Amino acid sequence: MRYFEDFAVGDEFELGSRSLSQDEIIAFAREYDPQPFHVDPEAAKSGPFGTLIASGWQTVGIFMSLLVNSLINETVSLGSPGIEGIKWLKPVKAGDRLTGRVRVYEATPSKSRSDRGILKTEGQLTNQDGALVMTLRAVNFFGRRPAPGR
Amino acid sequence: MRYFEDFAVGDEFELGSRSLSQDEIIAFAREYDPQPFHVDPEAAKSGPFGTLIASGWQTVGIFMSLLVNSLINETVSLGSPGIEGIKWLKPVKAGDRLTGRVRVYEATPSKSRSDRGILKTEGQLTNQDGALVMTLRAVNFFGRRPAPGR
Repeated sequence: MRYFEDFAVGDEFELGSRSLSQDEIIAFAREYDPQPFHVDPEAAKSGPFGTLIASGWQTVGIFMSLLVNSLINETVSLGSPGIEGIKWLKPVKAGDRLTGRVRVYEATPSKSRSDRGILKTEGQLTNQDGALVMTLRAVNFFGRRPAPGR
Repeated sequence: MRYFEDFAVGDEFELGSRSLSQDEIIAFAREYDPQPFHVDPEAAKSGPFGTLIASGWQTVGIFMSLLVNSLINETVSLGSPGIEGIKWLKPVKAGDRLTGRVRVYEATPSKSRSDRGILKTEGQLTNQDGALVMTLRAVNFFGRRPAPGR
């Protein structure tokens, strides 16, 4: 397992890829973001994007699943207090294949809780054409490595 | 339908409430955030929160569904370029009932695209005890009201 001490500013990780089908786009959006251009392929044709697109929140979810499966579940993750920014740069459409990457840009021991450190990370998703579709700046808590003999 | 012109800085909207079950927490997390404290009630007991908690991304999704059903689907919504910040202030647990509210804090016509205006909004979710569990600052595009006679 990786602790806070096992990360440094500038570290980068490839997170793998995941595809998104029209059925997945509609199923997510019905529950969490039922705008016509996310749930109704016919209505979407005359909507602002000219076609059905994924909820930006599902795009974030795809990134998160890649991050957790490739990296977070091999760390002492203690959750997150929040997000510093998300940019949705291009629509994500049915059949798109998204590839994730994450970079550490800040690493600070917590001042208030000695059991943890704080990593700030910038995540990116690119599509099958190499276009950047989303960036996400997150704050993450990780457990500190126990001192020897404890 | 509401256009950009129908909103002003300071406008506030109540968005209603939605509950979250343990099954919903696990189903979402298996797809999008499979950390042990989101997918495994037994493992979660010895984890950092002492119990199963919802993914912060599902908490955002609950807010979004309330926002879309109460307000966005009665507007000329043109999507969002991004988020300026999210804070997860308290864990959300199985059985919690979350209530949403949103306030407009900035309203600006787009300089680059005459068909739309930009609203910045701060959303909040509180739980059944009245505790604030999440805040979210979002950027939203809305269509402008067509000029008379066009």
